[in-house]
Formats: sequence, structure tokens, C-alpha cells
Amino acid sequence: MTINQNYSLVLQKVNHLSFEDRPKPVIVNETDVIVQILATGICGSDVHFYAHGCIGDFVVKKPLILGHESAGIVTKVGSEVTKVMVGDKICLEPGTPCHVCSLCLRGQYNHCAKMHFAAAPPVDGTLTKYFKIAETFCYKLPDNVSVDEGALMEPLSVAVHAVREAKITPGSSVVVFGAGPVGLLVAAVARNAYGASLTVIVDINEERLKFAKENFGVETYLSIKGRTAKEAGDNLVDVFDLNSERGFEFAIDATGVPYCIQSALYTLRPRGSFVQIGMGADNAELPISTICFHELNVRGSFRYNGGDFEQAVGLVARGIVDVKKLISSKVKFSQAKDAFEFVRQGKGLKTLISGPE
Amino acid sequence: MTINQNYSLVLQKVNHLSFEDRPKPVIVNETDVIVQILATGICGSDVHFYAHGCIGDFVVKKPLILGHESAGIVTKVGSEVTKVMVGDKICLEPGTPCHVCSLCLRGQYNHCAKMHFAAAPPVDGTLTKYFKIAETFCYKLPDNVSVDEGALMEPLSVAVHAVREAKITPGSSVVVFGAGPVGLLVAAVARNAYGASLTVIVDINEERLKFAKENFGVETYLSIKGRTAKEAGDNLVDVFDLNSERGFEFAIDATGVPYCIQSALYTLRPRGSFVQIGMGADNAELPISTICFHELNVRGSFRYNGGDFEQAVGLVARGIVDVKKLISSKVKFSQAKDAFEFVRQGKGLKTLISGPE
Amino acid sequence: MTINQNYSLVLQKVNHLSFEDRPKPVIVNETDVIVQILATGICGSDVHFYAHGCIGDFVVKKPLILGHESAGIVTKVGSEVTKVMVGDKICLEPGTPCHVCSLCLRGQYNHCAKMHFAAAPPVDGTLTKYFKIAETFCYKLPDNVSVDEGALMEPLSVAVHAVREAKITPGSSVVVFGAGPVGLLVAAVARNAYGASLTVIVDINEERLKFAKENFGVETYLSIKGRTAKEAGDNLVDVFDLNSERGFEFAIDATGVPYCIQSALYTLRPRGSFVQIGMGADNAELPISTICFHELNVRGSFRYNGGDFEQAVGLVARGIVDVKKLISSKVKFSQAKDAFEFVRQGKGLKTLISGPE
Amino acid sequence: MTINQNYSLVLQKVNHLSFEDRPKPVIVNETDVIVQILATGICGSDVHFYAHGCIGDFVVKKPLILGHESAGIVTKVGSEVTKVMVGDKICLEPGTPCHVCSLCLRGQYNHCAKMHFAAAPPVDGTLTKYFKIAETFCYKLPDNVSVDEGALMEPLSVAVHAVREAKITPGSSVVVFGAGPVGLLVAAVARNAYGASLTVIVDINEERLKFAKENFGVETYLSIKGRTAKEAGDNLVDVFDLNSERGFEFAIDATGVPYCIQSALYTLRPRGSFVQIGMGADNAELPISTICFHELNVRGSFRYNGGDFEQAVGLVARGIVDVKKLISSKVKFSQAKDAFEFVRQGKGLKTLISGPE
Repeated sequence: MTINQNYSLVLQKVNHLSFEDRPKPVIVNETDVIVQILATGICGSDVHFYAHGCIGDFVVKKPLILGHESAGIVTKVGSEVTKVMVGDKICLEPGTPCHVCSLCLRGQYNHCAKMHFAAAPPVDGTLTKYFKIAETFCYKLPDNVSVDEGALMEPLSVAVHAVREAKITPGSSVVVFGAGPVGLLVAAVARNAYGASLTVIVDINEERLKFAKENFGVETYLSIKGRTAKEAGDNLVDVFDLNSERGFEFAIDATGVPYCIQSALYTLRPRGSFVQIGMGADNAELPISTICFHELNVRGSFRYNGGDFEQAVGLVARGIVDVKKLISSKVKFSQAKDAFEFVRQGKGLKTLISGPE
Repeated sequence: MTINQNYSLVLQKVNHLSFEDRPKPVIVNETDVIVQILATGICGSDVHFYAHGCIGDFVVKKPLILGHESAGIVTKVGSEVTKVMVGDKICLEPGTPCHVCSLCLRGQYNHCAKMHFAAAPPVDGTLTKYFKIAETFCYKLPDNVSVDEGALMEPLSVAVHAVREAKITPGSSVVVFGAGPVGLLVAAVARNAYGASLTVIVDINEERLKFAKENFGVETYLSIKGRTAKEAGDNLVDVFDLNSERGFEFAIDATGVPYCIQSALYTLRPRGSFVQIGMGADNAELPISTICFHELNVRGSFRYNGGDFEQAVGLVARGIVDVKKLISSKVKFSQAKDAFEFVRQGKGLKTLISGPE
Repeated sequence: MTINQNYSLVLQKVNHLSFEDRPKPVIVNETDVIVQILATGICGSDVHFYAHGCIGDFVVKKPLILGHESAGIVTKVGSEVTKVMVGDKICLEPGTPCHVCSLCLRGQYNHCAKMHFAAAPPVDGTLTKYFKIAETFCYKLPDNVSVDEGALMEPLSVAVHAVREAKITPGSSVVVFGAGPVGLLVAAVARNAYGASLTVIVDINEERLKFAKENFGVETYLSIKGRTAKEAGDNLVDVFDLNSERGFEFAIDATGVPYCIQSALYTLRPRGSFVQIGMGADNAELPISTICFHELNVRGSFRYNGGDFEQAVGLVARGIVDVKKLISSKVKFSQAKDAFEFVRQGKGLKTLISGPE
Repeated sequence: MTINQNYSLVLQKVNHLSFEDRPKPVIVNETDVIVQILATGICGSDVHFYAHGCIGDFVVKKPLILGHESAGIVTKVGSEVTKVMVGDKICLEPGTPCHVCSLCLRGQYNHCAKMHFAAAPPVDGTLTKYFKIAETFCYKLPDNVSVDEGALMEPLSVAVHAVREAKITPGSSVVVFGAGPVGLLVAAVARNAYGASLTVIVDINEERLKFAKENFGVETYLSIKGRTAKEAGDNLVDVFDLNSERGFEFAIDATGVPYCIQSALYTLRPRGSFVQIGMGADNAELPISTICFHELNVRGSFRYNGGDFEQAVGLVARGIVDVKKLISSKVKFSQAKDAFEFVRQGKGLKTLISGPE
């Protein structure tokens, strides 16, 4: 029996995870880097593949290593690598585009049709001992940033990208729907890095709001049943005393729930901007006449591209966003299956898997 | 009996138009201009007030002079007026904002909460012999532009604003939904002024498409029943051979019909832009996951602001957009009531009312 | 003898200041506000008029009340005023544009050719007991902001405008030339409000740099004689370890000195942005081939426009920029002449004049 | 004697060109394309290397094949090439960036520090029979575009990039300094593709202006000795009747001459934009107080990046810019040395070299 020593968590099919010893990756291009993975966050998409076997057009047709929120230590580098060295603590940007299509050449590589993204079938993910990646997508972590924090750079980059797309400006008012990990990070980035003077997070879960207020200093608003989306939007404007300015300047939805998206649009002043970041419903009934009349700007935000990871690492290194607060539990690689079950049940905020040892 | 000599077309209540002799306006501010109206286009909103008595929050509660697409001759000016002189042929920008609120100060006066807009109740419109307006909203027509063309500057400015908001670039691909007056003008501006290399107009009416092709040189696409919006969007991309670019760069909806808006969103490539200009349905079910995944930019366009009228006048003066082609009929002021009935029945493309004599 | 009770500091001619009792202003437009001035900062331009009688095309031809950095208490309001009330503590935006020219309509009112700007001849300034201003240019100060801080909102708005024009982004590197009041405020806004991760201030005066570091937490760089501008620029990039990124992303000059402007341009990476805010030399020899080759963006910043004062007030109210630290001395109105002499000799950082009592 | 059959024009050292038979390129990467070069334009930079042996930091230290404005026929493709086929008529974008540095990932690959640019020493150019290039930088020419026109896509892309950087808008006023090939193309792109309503070209050579007017329909202005740059700028504004708008909206310099750059800045209205495209003087004395006071935007434009070549090909294919008119002479490859001497003497507008046969 061959021992590859590259233990991996493999989704065999829906609801069926197992550990496998896969071949160790080898340097092929001289800009390749081999990383020993030390910490990986479980993302909603990982759990969705585990529970449903697909997301949109991405269907798990053969065994798939899950995971794409990872950090680790560089163990081997190609001869042309200059950005990192063996022994460096790094986090990974887990998607590799073609670099040469018209979208890549314009800097919009997150839309590359040839993107290879970790744990998006059929591309294997990072819940494995050794993972190969091009140096350009390795980001060195400063001494004061831990590997666990490094595993959170991926969702933080998602948040940074959304806030950048929204073009949030200092002194502005921002409302974020959804107090899950991404919503919390969006609110923290908007408030602490982009200078929003009013940042409100909205959720139906009082505990999450309490957590948000205590840990990220944002204002909170409890969404109450029985209100129409229009009433909810208007009430938010009232409660935060924005009537004279005719509403919020920015709204970001991290839920994917139509009611939230609608409410968000009703909170905005003329020329306000809305960004959709949460994947959820395929369709939502939107107040198109309000969008038209108020010249609202509605935009989607998808993953990240040039500069987002650098900015995310900088925010953590400078103490501006404390991603550690999101880590609700951390388990050993051998407990990874239980961890997936735990997250699937909606428990915890962000679960990290350490190792493989 | 006093004779004011300011004959006007007044909407007394739903379905009831009459002629009235209203007081002549007088110069109050030294920047006021009195214009003798010579031509006015009938707009869908005028007809909507005639037929329904309201549009959204604008309700006709007392007799209202209709009309806001007008041109005429300057008959009197205040002592500080420098932009126009008595005898000048001009067109009117028919809305007056407060100029000093935070939106006005930022150049977004089309969203001024204190906007006085002609024929938006309770503000009287331009279907009157003499109309008073601030000089800043008078635009002199060059010799080679007729008063009839001047009456079309308002809808042309609406089109210019939408194309500016869309940020259409030379060499780009644009699809416009709706071959009514605004859709046609949007297509003409996109193609002739903003350099779109492919401009497609979509409608369910074959004759309108034929008219569009013959008069504005745009490509056309007949919308066919029985297709889903997704199928319609995909088919448009196929027919115009944009699969390798993954769709159109720009889509503009001038219908307000949810099916059209949906189709429009499905035609767009990643990072494509959609602009809603047509007022119609209050709500529309939109593919929010597509907006998110493709980072589409959805924006509303409402009326016009700084520079749109100048640009519109320039486009007609330089022969770039031939607005005359939209004029399907022209009637005397005495026939204005019949004209409203004609337009209400969906007849003609753009009906002009001349005079009052 | 009539007593107007509107004591004012009047520049009679070059080098000759005197106190005069001018007529009290009265409400003419119903949006007028009368403010009792309580604190005024002395600006370099005030001193320049005092010492030279002109700045560019602005020539003092008749007695001129100086001052334009002021705050006070509302004592009277026109019947239509809604933004402030009698008794409110406010600061003033000291320029009134025409509101209706094409630049005003586009939101660029700082370039209005008909601008009436306080203490720009022949328009009188704010070093007077009662000053009349349109409500739109009054900004209410929150309880936690003093009148003295209010007097600093004008230079802070200048800084905010420059940073906005530069489009400084979170996590970016910024170098500011000149540690005078405006340079310090620019650096503070860039660092504390716009999230710059590296903010360096450059000066030839070690004490000013020490002050900057201690009070605003920015990095400092002492400019040394004998270096070419290119060497100075390169050295800055070296010292702050930006070689791998090929330089700073943003540079702002608050000196108006050609050597500084040149050095600033040599610090920038490709696509970097430079903003000129300091008025000084009329001409400067600039490295145009570097601007071309690196596609640098060079832009001027002049005064402020829509939203800058609101943002300035917010930054002080939220404790983000501590403008009090700039106040080096404060004198009574009766000592205003001495204060001008003191500032003319280059003493102090920001001198405030209180009253008139 | 080996016959490589890859005849090339080689700059051995300053003033010394010779023909050499170099090895034929071979496919190494499966995205490589081999092109048989059929037409090449002589660029000012080629002639500068020929006459001076260097441009800035680029020094000819070993024999160098010149040429980078080329078109030809595909003769061989790697197995993964999909964009072009053997037999296709194409033009070349002659620079290959690293694709993975932070500038490349942001779409600013024209600033890649690892750029390999044809005929920029030590990288060989395109005046050779067979040239290897990555498919991504091959652009297929439509049937109605000749290979000679294809050779002009490089300078046309330079012009497109500059106009894009300037953000020229429909209906705007543009002044271009320099009626050489690049200036003419900039003016043609601004006028015909970007919708400028007034496009003026300035030169000291009356014949060039006559050519510009007759062939590209632009307005012309003869620069006259004895005027200061300020006078020249003011006079341009007068002559083209832009005083009421306070000047041109856009100015582009294609000369690199300080006097022209200065004049250009003096023509601009507040918030106007200037783009430097012509490489010439290293330094120029610029009116920095005017830049500051009028908040002018001064930007450099360097080569081209994502989308510029596609746009250039489209403009020629749609008949919007007639690049053929620039071709003043065309010589056989065997006469290439004479052609370089001819261009070095400042003769002709654009000289093409056909072949090598």
C-alpha cells in the first residue's frame, strides 16, 4: 500500500464525507508553491455541496476535496518564486483564472470563464495536507497575524470586495442585512476601514445582533415579523433619524432573502447604492419603479479580485478588523466530519478545522 | 369679462379637458423669461394624468394645465437675463429645483425634493400661450433646428441622461427594449452619439421595428411569445453572435414591463450594465443571483440634469439624431382634446400640438 | 453719531488694518441667516491681502473686511429657514455661488464665475460682529463641537476636498508635503478618515514634524538640502520600504513649492495620483515624461463643494480629526491687528480671533 | 551555411542597420502563434533607437531587430490556440506582460515591470519574417481591413487609449496639439468615435493642418511664433468661441514640446482634462497655480491595455477612422534601410515596410 501522506477530506457524494490519502502535489511550473495547510474555515458553500451536491451549475460528479478558506506554511517553491519563501506563513486566494482572456486583461478575473476555484467541482479544495498554488495567489501573513486569522482572509476579502464595489465613503450611512460571518465582516470593513459614520446591521436573531454590537461596535436593528418590506425600510430610516437625508447612502445584503433585499432598497436615499453579496434566492421581486425614480444603483459582488486580499491582510495586521472574534469553534482535522454536521445544523458562527496534522 | 389672452389646456378632472383663459405670467425675478409656446409634444405621463388622474404620489386635486415638452419664442426677459433675448427660439427644461439642498449642491437636482415640474400636480404645465421660466432652463435653438424639433428636446434629454448613466462606450454592444419614442431615442443616441457598434432594439410590434431600422439604422429583434425571459435573453445573445463575449455590454429598458427587464438582464455579460428608464410596473421579479454572480450593474434613470439639454440640442443641431422622424402627427391647439384621445388610444408615435395661436 | 454695533476688522489698504463700525446686516431673502461671529481663524490668504493687497486677480481696491474661517451663533433667521434656528451654534461655508450656471448645475460650484467669497475683494469677510449668509451654507455644530473647533471647519473642508479629489482608498500609502495647518489636516483626514495605512508628512522643519507625529500619529520625513527632487522622491520610497510596490499611491502637496511638487511626483508608483492644494509658485517645472510614462494623475484641488463641510463637521464630532490641536493661540478681537502681525511673521500654527465681543 | 529563412532588419549599433537571417521561432507554449509579418509601420521610437541607440533606460547593447507596428498571416498555432487559425489575417499587440503582478491583476498591464515589448531592447521586434506571439495578443482583421491597415492598429490603439484616459464625452470640445500620425489619430478618434462636437488640431506646419482638415474633417489652428503659451491658449479659446464656456473641456498633447503643453493647459475650462501622449521633453514648466485653481486633471497616457486593440480594429472595420490616409509611402523589405533614413529626415507621415518577401 502506497502512503501518499496527503490526507484530505473528500466529499464522495451527497452527505458522504471521508478521509482519503491523495497524491502529494509536485512543482510543475517554476512559479508554483506547495503549502502545508494548517487552518481552514468551513464556508456555507462547502456545506451546501455536502448537503445538496451542487450549487447552480457546479455539480459534484466525482469525489471532491472540500475547503477554500485556508492558511498554512510554505514547504516548497519553484525556482522562479520570489514572493514567498519556504517557512513563510501565508493565506491563499483559492481561485486561479486564465490570466489572458479579455476579462482577465481588464482586471476582472473573478469572472474568468476558465477560473479554477478550490472546491468548486471538479476542482479539488484545500482540506488536504499539501496544496499547490501559484505564488501570485499566496499572501504572506505578518508576524502578528496567526494562521487561524489567515484562514479568515478569504471571507474578509469577500467583504472588502463588496464594500469596494459599493464605493462606501467616509462619513456615510450604511445598512447591512444579515449578521452572519460575511455580514459582520462587511459591517466591520465599512465602519472601521471605509469610515462609515453610521453602520447598522439588521437580523432576525437578537443574539447575533448582541454579538455584533459587542464585538464590532455597530448599531443594530431587529427585523420584526408582520411588517412589509416597505415598512421595514421606512422604519429603519426613522429609527436612525435619516428622514431629512431621505435614507441611507449604502445598503448591502448578505442574506440572499428577497424580503431583506426589498427592505434594503426601501432604506436608500436618491442615488443610493445597494450591493448584493449573499447568494440565496435565484429571483427576488424588486421595486423597479423605486430603483428608476430614485436612480438607485444595484450591483452584485462576487468573490474578489486584484488587491482585495492585500487589503484584507492589511486590515487584520493593523488591528482594524478583528477576525478572530468570528471563530466560534476550532476542531482537529480528524473531527472534520462532525464539524461539517455541526455547521450544517446552523450552529456556530465560523468553524475552523486545523491540520491535517 | 377679463380677457387674459393666455389660453391653456386644463385637465379639470379625470377624462375632462377644457380650454381656459388663464392670467398671463409676469416677470417677478429679474432672471425670469416669458416664452410664447409654439409646439408641445404629448407625453405618456400627460395622458396618464388625463386617463387616471395620478401617477404615484402625484394626484390631480385641482385643475391642472398639462404639457411639459415644449418650445417657443422668448417674448419678455427680466433685467438680469443674459442667456436669451426677446425673439430667440428656445426649448424648455420643464423642472425647477430649489438649487440649495444637498442634492442640488451635488448636481443631482433631478432628485430635489422641492422640484417644481411642469404638469406634475399641483404645478401647471406648458400647454398655455405664455409660460414663465428661469433663464437657466431656457436653451436657445440654433437656426437649423425648428420649434417642432425643439419640442422633442425633452424626451431626447431623457434618452441622453439614460445613455450617460449607462456609461455607454464607443465600440460597445447595446440592446434597448421598447421601440416607442424614448426607446428609439435611446437607441439613436447610443448608436450615433456614443459610438455603440451594435445597437439592437427589441419590441413585439413588427411595424415599429421596421420603422426603427429604416429611420434610425439600428438592428432589430422581434420578441416572440412563448419564450421564457431567460430564453429570450439567451436567444438575443445567439442571434447577434455575442456568445464568445458572453453577452451584451449594455441593456436599457424603455418599457417598464417585467418580462423585458428580466430578458434584458439575461442578455448581459459579466460586469454588464442595465438601465431602467421606462416607468411601468412598480415591482418586477429580477434574477438577483445572476446580478450577484455576474456583478451586473442595475441603475435607474430619471429625467435629466446638468448638461443633458445642451447635449440634446447639440445632437439635433449637428444632425446626429433626427428627432423629426418621431413626429407622427401635428395638430392645432384647438384640436388638443382630440389629440389626447388619439394618443390615449395608443395611436401614433409622437403627437405635437402647435400654438396656442 | 450712529452706532451700528457691527464692529469689523477692515483692511484699509496694504499694511493698514483698522476697526470700523459697519451697518448691521438685515434679512432680505427669507432664507437668509444672521450669525453672530464668535471665532475666526486667520488664513494665509487673509495675511497675504494684508501684506500685499492682492492674490492673483483679486485686488483690494477699497476697504475690505477680512476673515472667512468662522463660527458663531444664529441670531436671526428668515421666515423660510428650516436648517438652523436662532441660538444654534454653527460654522460657515464662506462662499456663495450663483447656483444656476452650468458649473453650479453640475455640482462644481467652487468654480462658479459669479462666486461671492468672503474676504475675496470686493466681497467683505467675516471678521465682523454680525454676518449674513444663506441657510444652505450654515452647518450646525453638535453639542460636543466648540465654536473654536467650528472656526477650523473651513481649513478642514479644504483638506477633505483634496483627499476626496485624490480618491484616497483604505490601506493605501500617502505622502503629504508641508506640515502647516492644511498639510496636517490632509494627513489626518487621509489617515484617520480615509484609512490610509501609511501616511507620511514631509517638511524642512523638524519641530513641525515632531508636532505632526505626536499629535496626529503620522510618519514623518525630514527634507534635507542638497538632494535633487528625484533623489528626494527615491529616498522617500526607500525609507518607507515601498520599492517592491514601486512607490506611493498618493501624494498631496500643501506647499506650492516646485521642489516639493517635483519630489512628490517622483515618489509615485505607476497610475499614482498627485493633488496640488497649496497655492504658491505660479509655475513649476514638472517631470512630464514621468507623468506620461507612469500615467500619473495630477489634479488641482480648490476650496470645497457639495458635502465637504458636512464631512468635516462629522469628522470632528466623531473624534476622528482633532482640529483643536492646531490652535496655537487665541486672541480677543481687540487684539486682532497684533494677531495679523504675529501670523505675518510666520509664528504659530493657527491663530484664532474671538469675538467681536 | 544554414538558411534560417527568417530575414530580419537588425540594428547593429547606432546608425547601422543590416539584414540578418535569424532562426525561425518555434511553438513552445501551446498558446503560441507564429505570424508571417506582411506589413510594418516605422515608428518614431524605432528611428530614435536607430539614430541614438537609446530611449530613456532602454539602451541598445546588442543587435536588435526593430519594428513593433505589424500585421501578417498566421502560419502556425499551438494546440490550445482558439482565437485565431492558420491563414488568418491578424495584427499584433507587441508587448507581453507577466500577467501575475499586482498591476497586471488590476488590468494595468501596460505598467508591468516585466513587460517584454517588441523592439524595446533587449527584446527583438517584428521586422522579421516570422514572429512568435501569444494568441491573446493576436487580433483577427475582418475581411474589409487590409494588412496595411492592420499595421496601423498599434498607433491607433495608442490614440484610443489616450482618448479613453481623457474620458472624452459626446458633444465635448477637444484640442489636440501636433498633427503627426498620433495627433491625427487622436483627433479622428475623439471626433468620429467619441462624439466630440468640436475637435481642433494645432500645429506649426500649415500643410499638415491642410491635410488634417481635408482627410479627417477636424478644425485646425496654426500656431504662430511670438505668442506666449498663455496668449496662444487664450487665442484658441477666442477663435473657437468658447469664452462663455471658459475654454475647452479636453486637451491632448501629442508633441512633447513644453510650449504646446503649456498652451494646452491654458485652453482648458475649470475641471478640464489634459492628457500627455507625446514623449518629448523630460521636463516642462507647467502653470501649477492654474492647475490648482481650475482643478485641472493632468494625466499621462502610455501605450495601451485591455480592450484598446479590439476598439481600434472595430473603428477601422466600421469605417469610422480611415487609417489608410496616414500611409505616405510603402516600400519593400529590401528597401527598409532607405526607409529608415527617409523617416529620420522627417519625411512622410507614416512609412510602411512590406514583407519580408
